[in-house]
Amino acid sequence: MIPNDREPDLLSEIENVAMEFDSTERRFVSSRSKLDPLDEGQVLVRVLCCTLCGSDLHTVSGRRKGHDHGVLGHEIVGEVIGWCGEFTPSDYHGVPLQIGQRVTWAMSVGCEHCFYCSNDLNQKCDSLFKYGHEASHGHPTGGLSEHCVLVAGTPIFPVPDELTNEVVAPVNCATATVSAALRLVNQTHRVKHATVLVVGAGMLGLTAAAQLNEAGAARIVVADPNAGRAELAQSFGATDLIVGETADERQSMLQEMTNGRGADIAIDFAGMTTAVNACLDSVRMGGCVVLVGSVFPSDPIALYPEQAIRRMLTIRGLHNYLPRDLDDGLRFLERNHQRFPFDTLVGKGFPLREVEQAFEYAMEQRPVRVAVYPSSDA
Amino acid sequence: MIPNDREPDLLSEIENVAMEFDSTERRFVSSRSKLDPLDEGQVLVRVLCCTLCGSDLHTVSGRRKGHDHGVLGHEIVGEVIGWCGEFTPSDYHGVPLQIGQRVTWAMSVGCEHCFYCSNDLNQKCDSLFKYGHEASHGHPTGGLSEHCVLVAGTPIFPVPDELTNEVVAPVNCATATVSAALRLVNQTHRVKHATVLVVGAGMLGLTAAAQLNEAGAARIVVADPNAGRAELAQSFGATDLIVGETADERQSMLQEMTNGRGADIAIDFAGMTTAVNACLDSVRMGGCVVLVGSVFPSDPIALYPEQAIRRMLTIRGLHNYLPRDLDDGLRFLERNHQRFPFDTLVGKGFPLREVEQAFEYAMEQRPVRVAVYPSSDA
Repeated sequence: MIPNDREPDLLSEIENVAMEFDSTERRFVSSRSKLDPLDEGQVLVRVLCCTLCGSDLHTVSGRRKGHDHGVLGHEIVGEVIGWCGEFTPSDYHGVPLQIGQRVTWAMSVGCEHCFYCSNDLNQKCDSLFKYGHEASHGHPTGGLSEHCVLVAGTPIFPVPDELTNEVVAPVNCATATVSAALRLVNQTHRVKHATVLVVGAGMLGLTAAAQLNEAGAARIVVADPNAGRAELAQSFGATDLIVGETADERQSMLQEMTNGRGADIAIDFAGMTTAVNACLDSVRMGGCVVLVGSVFPSDPIALYPEQAIRRMLTIRGLHNYLPRDLDDGLRFLERNHQRFPFDTLVGKGFPLREVEQAFEYAMEQRPVRVAVYPSSDA
Repeated sequence: MIPNDREPDLLSEIENVAMEFDSTERRFVSSRSKLDPLDEGQVLVRVLCCTLCGSDLHTVSGRRKGHDHGVLGHEIVGEVIGWCGEFTPSDYHGVPLQIGQRVTWAMSVGCEHCFYCSNDLNQKCDSLFKYGHEASHGHPTGGLSEHCVLVAGTPIFPVPDELTNEVVAPVNCATATVSAALRLVNQTHRVKHATVLVVGAGMLGLTAAAQLNEAGAARIVVADPNAGRAELAQSFGATDLIVGETADERQSMLQEMTNGRGADIAIDFAGMTTAVNACLDSVRMGGCVVLVGSVFPSDPIALYPEQAIRRMLTIRGLHNYLPRDLDDGLRFLERNHQRFPFDTLVGKGFPLREVEQAFEYAMEQRPVRVAVYPSSDA
């Protein structure tokens, strides 16, 4: 290790506390250990805030397979403490990082050289690294830890001062994924002036409503069986709500909203088979469906090839995002954090030692987000 | 009617013979009648050659529903005889038409004003007109007729002298549809340097192989259970063939051809559920599937939303094409008609009075195309 010359003694002195999730026993285990020496190119951050994503809840509930003894949490905002190497690491835009700087970073890190990284699929890199998903190998790399080690090559983004930790923490998952979804849509369709159906009014659905609103969508129809969440969507730019109606009622409401044609675009963030079918049934001739929510096993949908052809459907699956989507998401929040009430979405915060309670609260109360503050109770 | 001043008496003197298909009785009926006066903006052509498309065969076999007493045939090349109106009509590029000029034209005519026409979906126009598909209303508008009346607003294209009638007739269906498929692919993926699976080695599959070859695809894998057709694909630019293997064998061949990743792009022209499934199974992570062939009812495919998301699939249904695709298709044939043996694809030609035999031959012998020459036996 070549120590950071500005903080030469700091890194080798740090004891870290992390809450590791044992996916076999389905419980959290507190671990305290001295940090291993950093490797060349690694950056050490103190975790200021980690919000719990739906996929974290899926892992803890057993709906989604987790690694043994991994440190969960990937929606993280942190503070740069130091790094290893002779040269000062730079952020995504090539500007040198500074000690004490508040940062977020891409959840997935690609090698930049393999087939997938060369084809705009860094999130499917042959040697992919994902924060908050892998088993720890000496270094903590999830958000439910006092510190997080950023691996070499991580796209790092300074956080603008005006964004609070709670507002910015979800940017590297929910916000960036929504930016990626709209990037996909705009490759083949036009968001501007479009009628868009958004299924699911969780963090991603609300963010999508807000991004669609800024992008000039004419009508933003948000569907969610939970009336409270659906109504929340109105303050995030939704123009119409569909709450808990039957499939037939939903369809006829949507037909009325769209001159009988159907939506131009439908984006599913809910993931259930019924939600995916609602999207496919709702779009007009030549419409575009983006599937984002189904990151867990579900029943298949029946797709009729003749219908796909005669209706000229575009169906795209999106998993995670590219570094530039995170940049777009961050710029979106910078421009719009006062326009839409993102600061109300974290229902409650917990110190790291109460992470079990944080997950219980998240699963029982279903606020849009729950925050964990690992640095506040070392 | 305002007669064409250069041929003032011609149009009102013409007796036309057409073979109308009675879809209830499933037989052709010869009709001879004097042409009704043309309406403003209509152009009259003499049909030089009409090739029988797969969808014509589906209509005649009853697999696809046809209109009562319609004149089938839409892959047409004709010769301009005259028009109605004070002004000389122009071709797609705005150049005035000339009497005696050889032309082809878009199979679908949109109004250019409705929602679909304003959104690059002219083929789904609210008041769509399709050649060779509609019941006749006074004027013959299919290719199995000595004359064809081009409705006002039809995108008309002069045929380059070097393209024979047999080579150019399929341009306004097969060739243009393939151009449209590659246009869709290039919106989200790159044909150049790609490995592409083409399922079905009929007119569209062979044309696709040739267009992909010209566009610089690295590997063009053509799959067809018919060994003769698959082998024909080699002379149309296919680099690899998959003939009649089982689904598992096909998959492992394709994996070998693609470093274990799968194809970048798969295009189905065959239409059967098994063919569609083969495409979906064959593409790599982030791959693109374009469905073209399923223009008849078939069993649904089972699409797993989680797979579509984690594999980041793009699935697009394509039905017909836009006028600019026909322009692209015509330019493609102009550049490549000597490079690929398009002139060998018409297995046999028939005069109009033998249209029943033409269909029988097409269905029994399965050549890539059969031609009908309506003007040769008036």
